[in-house]
Amino acid sequence: MSASAPATPTAFTEASLRAHIAATPELAQQFGGVVDDLSVTEIGDGNLNFVFFVRGSHGALAIKQALPWSRMSKGARALTSERLAFETRALQIFAEFAPAHVPHIHHYDAQNSLMAQTFLSPHIILRKGLMAGQDYPLLAEHISTFLANCLYGSSAMAMAPARRRPLVACFAANTELCEITERLVFTHPFEQADSNRWTSPQLDAQVAALQANGALQMRVRDLKLRFLTKSQALLHGDLHSGSIMLTATDTRVIDPEFATFGPMGFDIGMLLGNLLLAHFAQPAHNSAAKPQILHLIHDIWQGFAAKFRALALAGPGLLSPPQPDRTQDYADLRAGWVDAFLADVLEDTIDFAAIEMIRRTIGAAHVAEFEEITDADLRARCESAVLDHATALLTRKGAASGISVLTAGR
Amino acid sequence: MSASAPATPTAFTEASLRAHIAATPELAQQFGGVVDDLSVTEIGDGNLNFVFFVRGSHGALAIKQALPWSRMSKGARALTSERLAFETRALQIFAEFAPAHVPHIHHYDAQNSLMAQTFLSPHIILRKGLMAGQDYPLLAEHISTFLANCLYGSSAMAMAPARRRPLVACFAANTELCEITERLVFTHPFEQADSNRWTSPQLDAQVAALQANGALQMRVRDLKLRFLTKSQALLHGDLHSGSIMLTATDTRVIDPEFATFGPMGFDIGMLLGNLLLAHFAQPAHNSAAKPQILHLIHDIWQGFAAKFRALALAGPGLLSPPQPDRTQDYADLRAGWVDAFLADVLEDTIDFAAIEMIRRTIGAAHVAEFEEITDADLRARCESAVLDHATALLTRKGAASGISVLTAGR
Repeated sequence: MSASAPATPTAFTEASLRAHIAATPELAQQFGGVVDDLSVTEIGDGNLNFVFFVRGSHGALAIKQALPWSRMSKGARALTSERLAFETRALQIFAEFAPAHVPHIHHYDAQNSLMAQTFLSPHIILRKGLMAGQDYPLLAEHISTFLANCLYGSSAMAMAPARRRPLVACFAANTELCEITERLVFTHPFEQADSNRWTSPQLDAQVAALQANGALQMRVRDLKLRFLTKSQALLHGDLHSGSIMLTATDTRVIDPEFATFGPMGFDIGMLLGNLLLAHFAQPAHNSAAKPQILHLIHDIWQGFAAKFRALALAGPGLLSPPQPDRTQDYADLRAGWVDAFLADVLEDTIDFAAIEMIRRTIGAAHVAEFEEITDADLRARCESAVLDHATALLTRKGAASGISVLTAGR
Repeated sequence: MSASAPATPTAFTEASLRAHIAATPELAQQFGGVVDDLSVTEIGDGNLNFVFFVRGSHGALAIKQALPWSRMSKGARALTSERLAFETRALQIFAEFAPAHVPHIHHYDAQNSLMAQTFLSPHIILRKGLMAGQDYPLLAEHISTFLANCLYGSSAMAMAPARRRPLVACFAANTELCEITERLVFTHPFEQADSNRWTSPQLDAQVAALQANGALQMRVRDLKLRFLTKSQALLHGDLHSGSIMLTATDTRVIDPEFATFGPMGFDIGMLLGNLLLAHFAQPAHNSAAKPQILHLIHDIWQGFAAKFRALALAGPGLLSPPQPDRTQDYADLRAGWVDAFLADVLEDTIDFAAIEMIRRTIGAAHVAEFEEITDADLRARCESAVLDHATALLTRKGAASGISVLTAGR
């Protein structure tokens, strides 16, 4: 994607973006050509990019600009603007497989590193919704469809190699953001690193023990290697509960700028790990309504597995019977094959969920559910339970018999 | 690599190549500038490319030209000349890790799709040497070094992701030749395909049974998926006994135009599968000397495993201890980790060896060891034993306890 990446896009302000929209027919037409009443608000609660909500009397867009540095670092950490090209490409591919669960892209401008997508309203971020005590009865159904359709659709079981190899090549070039994952998820939390932070001194001894746990250290290396070399499907790459916007009836996955080919269990595990974190934080929150997060986790996995199985067996694809099919027991064998495949995805899911729970507790990037617990002792007790559970998961023996391993004892 | 690929290179003849060398200083200097006595011979016994041996009084080169079609098809099957760029890039990378076991590249010219490498003399092709009854006491030592150094060196355990991702991207674009592997190794032999051929009618019933074997069919799909998605290391991609040139004291791997990132066991398995084919053909040959091929197979695997283990444990790399290393039992854990990794590579090796044996017996491309058996009944008896053994390997239960599984009962 290097060829299309801009050298130095100029940062838009609310005012200059309004002028840019007026001067760009493809953008202006999204507002019915009526641009003099546009309201432009930079909301940017993300770590890397600027996001503007643009509302007019005849339309609305969410417009994202990626500048050649990380927003969180205020310019200190250089990043190329190419990440927006990867995000756009990934959203386009996901839209093929699960159009109901991603925003639509209306405009992409590599020169200005600008992308305009559906203004999702009245959607809110899943993490915030869960913290507000909201239940989402359709979430498991929607997100398991997204996962099954996108992970199967971009797998080598479904996608022809002649199409898939260039895509793998394209996303293998998403070096910068993958390097962030490698560092912040798989490396720093498990060694002494300046970017790590945890509730101290309450968790000091537990963190030292975790980092000195040899069996856990070896499993983490295994997971890092799986992330780097198990190119099963096109991953979102950062599918936590802040990357999902929803209402009671509509669910959309946003922000796949970390997209790369990797193990299916990485996306599923990161999502379920974040949900489990939300569950572990519940005792510290006094909200009357507490969403049934463990049920949600079960339903997402079961929904994913059932839909993935159905897609794989329906074909066409890797599991299509040979022609002519002379075998008697092919249907059973194919079903057994998919079940074995899914059992392996489940192992990965549990492992990646556990690593996500640890790195969100002792690494650089924490989650709001815990950040908002002001009583440090109370927070430490909840976090301690997270670390215990995640450590038990990562050092478990034998194969998991089902998703309940992830939620066991909870 | 698209950018550097020529549109339509002109096919060299022996005469025009001599003129081209004289006119190209970088080539002429390889012959000490003395080009009027050059002897140029097109030997091209490969399937895809033209190879010229160029000898002068002051030097010699093997010069390869890749035209935009497959030589075997006499122009009927279009292929881009890019394959020579992939071969060149792969040889350069292998040269970093195992310089003693690849030819040196002296010149690469994308415009003419021409590459000049060491003229290997008095080396012969391993397959021919074994058929001539030659023993190669240093082969296992040399080729296991090549395998361990190149597979470890290009693994995510050793190579930094920032360097490795662009390489994965580069070789993921080797679509054309990987597609040949997908088709001729993993697909056609296991269905009714016009390109298949076998000793008929002697093997007809056995082939029908093999293609109707559901358990085997499912394992083949598993292997195809592993080939497509397990990007452990940069593979040679076609490492049969025709891709190794050697003398009693020197061993060189040539022709990695099928190079791609994939499972380590694919390269090792293809090599050991071809050696096992040579062993199965021995009863039909009357040569007095019969190389001890089963010992060779054992020695190659054991050498590979020992060297890979040593490299992985020596670091630096994925298995480096965390700093500070607070764990007591880290050395044992690391050794156990590598052993588990190698056990998985061994499973892949056995599986890919078995599939190679089958496809060389009933698919499009056969091996000289069997082609040269003129008595069809005798050939069929040897081939039948190959198919029986490979089927047993592919449908085995449980994990292999060692490389002897591959040679069991032989």
